[in-house]
Amino acid sequence: ESGALNKVERILNSGLAPADIAHLIESSPPKARKVLWDLVDKELEGEVLQYLSEDLQAHFLSDLSAEELVDITSDLDADDVADILQQLPERVTQEVLDAMDQQDRTRLEQVLGYPEDSAGGLMNTDTVTIRPDITLEVVMRYLRRHPTLPEMTDNLLIVNRNNEFIGILTINKLLVSDPNQTVREVMTTDARVIPATMQDTDVAKLFERHDLVSAPVVDAEGKLIGRITIDDVVDVIRETADHSLMSSVGLDEEEDTFAPALKTSRRRAVWLGINLLTALAASAVIGLFDKTIEQVVALAVLMPIVASMGGIAGSQVLTLVIRGQALGHLSSANFRWLFNREIIVAGINGVLWAAVIAVITLLWFNDPGIAAIIGAAIIINLLVAAVTGAALPLILKARGIDPALAGGVVLTTVTDVIGFLSFLGLATLFYL
Amino acid sequence: ESGALNKVERILNSGLAPADIAHLIESSPPKARKVLWDLVDKELEGEVLQYLSEDLQAHFLSDLSAEELVDITSDLDADDVADILQQLPERVTQEVLDAMDQQDRTRLEQVLGYPEDSAGGLMNTDTVTIRPDITLEVVMRYLRRHPTLPEMTDNLLIVNRNNEFIGILTINKLLVSDPNQTVREVMTTDARVIPATMQDTDVAKLFERHDLVSAPVVDAEGKLIGRITIDDVVDVIRETADHSLMSSVGLDEEEDTFAPALKTSRRRAVWLGINLLTALAASAVIGLFDKTIEQVVALAVLMPIVASMGGIAGSQVLTLVIRGQALGHLSSANFRWLFNREIIVAGINGVLWAAVIAVITLLWFNDPGIAAIIGAAIIINLLVAAVTGAALPLILKARGIDPALAGGVVLTTVTDVIGFLSFLGLATLFYL
Repeated sequence: ESGALNKVERILNSGLAPADIAHLIESSPPKARKVLWDLVDKELEGEVLQYLSEDLQAHFLSDLSAEELVDITSDLDADDVADILQQLPERVTQEVLDAMDQQDRTRLEQVLGYPEDSAGGLMNTDTVTIRPDITLEVVMRYLRRHPTLPEMTDNLLIVNRNNEFIGILTINKLLVSDPNQTVREVMTTDARVIPATMQDTDVAKLFERHDLVSAPVVDAEGKLIGRITIDDVVDVIRETADHSLMSSVGLDEEEDTFAPALKTSRRRAVWLGINLLTALAASAVIGLFDKTIEQVVALAVLMPIVASMGGIAGSQVLTLVIRGQALGHLSSANFRWLFNREIIVAGINGVLWAAVIAVITLLWFNDPGIAAIIGAAIIINLLVAAVTGAALPLILKARGIDPALAGGVVLTTVTDVIGFLSFLGLATLFYL
Repeated sequence: ESGALNKVERILNSGLAPADIAHLIESSPPKARKVLWDLVDKELEGEVLQYLSEDLQAHFLSDLSAEELVDITSDLDADDVADILQQLPERVTQEVLDAMDQQDRTRLEQVLGYPEDSAGGLMNTDTVTIRPDITLEVVMRYLRRHPTLPEMTDNLLIVNRNNEFIGILTINKLLVSDPNQTVREVMTTDARVIPATMQDTDVAKLFERHDLVSAPVVDAEGKLIGRITIDDVVDVIRETADHSLMSSVGLDEEEDTFAPALKTSRRRAVWLGINLLTALAASAVIGLFDKTIEQVVALAVLMPIVASMGGIAGSQVLTLVIRGQALGHLSSANFRWLFNREIIVAGINGVLWAAVIAVITLLWFNDPGIAAIIGAAIIINLLVAAVTGAALPLILKARGIDPALAGGVVLTTVTDVIGFLSFLGLATLFYL
């Protein structure tokens, strides 16, 4: 037993990269996680920690003292330390800050001063800055005085004596240019500069669209305060994408695959409760027509088809529009075109599937009345689904509600209610 | 009119980056796209093209001759040209290859020899290689002979005279080290090397986990054949994430937000048709119990609740497991734990919501029999949903079926059928 543990400990601490250790911990059930974490070397703990999800960070950090936290985080980038500290109670954060040296504290406080989902919260403070009037030869000598450069340094940042950002010198340019030229002669002044208040998803779009590896971050006065690197942007992209996927079923994008049963049950229960309200609304609509169903029981057999086809068609539109919003494709200028297109598509597919379903109904129940009614209801519900699916994300977003989270529930409520209402309502008019 | 067009043309070709032009085109309805594309300068067309989705690439390319294609693609990386050529008919691809100069053709054929979704299909061929026995001073002089270095060059690749990969010299190390040292003295030999046959999603995991900017690609004999850069990896991450989201409603991850109505209708129709089969299966189950419903019409009112709660609970599990698969968290070793946890969660939430729904039913219909039956059906369906949601992605994946695409449909079929079967079946036993 203890021999096996020793072996695991050796593999953990010598064979694996911190990211791999973190991955191993994330891929383990709760008990195994605790065992693995206890086996990780003290010097590696900080590195491993930054690759763990926020839930797990908070879990492991809660056992540590302020001194241990300072130790663990001393080798990390300011943005990663800031992310970790934000998992802690206010009081502990203050203790950790107090225990740090002056320089680290100042840097960290700068990052902590910005929201976690802004460029300021995403940035590192490990910039390599130079002045414009020196030669490249001098720049090279200056760099050689560093034991190493910050990771992902693909350009040097040029500032004046007030630390105002002037431009960048790409490493690429530095390497191919004549060393006797000055920085000013070869620098790039139209580089993409990121204001500290920019939303992290906009930062990601900028990086993605312009293939950036790193970009300088400036404050409101144009002073250089840090830089953002692609590794942190990749995390934003991953989280944004996971958010769309997980929110649609009421889960968090950081949802822990191996969270304990009780915690999982509690989180899931909320979503089931919200959806029960949707289902009850649908049931209430059906309840309005119980007399009709008693007379024509075929209606009860067929009614889920109308609701379900509307739900499917609507969620296609909804998903397309939500993704279009996320990619920045949709604006008020082109929304009208999209809206009209969706009405046409719903019309075409409505008529097509109304015909198919009417024929099936006719063959099944041999009742032309019901066949005509279900066909009409399908067309109505597909049109309503298209209008709802297209307009809902914009309405929700304008009200500050996350379309990825609420869109599906609202849409299903609408398509269920309209589906049952149109089908059973038309049947009531016809049969009673 | 033509004055306005001139203005747009000026803005397009002098003010915007190619990625921004591509974004503008993607954000426009079909007619405006054609106008915008015709305004783009010939020299910019290739650059713009590589940022467009595959659908749009194919659309614009279909108008061009082989010579025009060679012109347009001459400034692009081999992997981007390969992606573009793969949109074209075989015959045109051959024409374009024939019209290229020898060096470009050889490079391109190397990339085209690998599947689009492998490391080989993702790589660029623009490597900067050096030998291990020269000094850093010589490396610097060698680099200065280049007018520019390939984008995202964060390391130089070291090969022997047989072009076999030996190691990397990071630019970081090059800049901080004593120029009199040799490459061999400062090189990294344990760098992550990517086999050309590696799956692109695995490449993405490697980049993400180890914060890489670029990595060398080798063939089966260990010879260096190219390198992969983070910008292409970001595209893979984005596409993989979009795939999970869009597949769940039967759409393609490259789905064009502004595709014309007819094309859109055709694509959506297929998904609606598949889902109609699901709905018909559910209806058939209800049809088995039409006598029971005729007697107790409250069953028709309540039955959507049972099916819907099962569908919601199941899709939570399904989404969690599919994401766990994508992140590489799930293996046969930890699956049993997850499976058991899901059974427990379903049990807890099953009992909780069965109680709530039973109480609501009792208050609504004042019939303890129906209240007990719906409670039992909820528990049964939530347990079945958990088992299906957890096991389905593994079963589908083992059979080579994409869980993101098929998982939702199969799950809904199961929860609908079991939901109606358990509720109406129990009621039939009880009332008839």
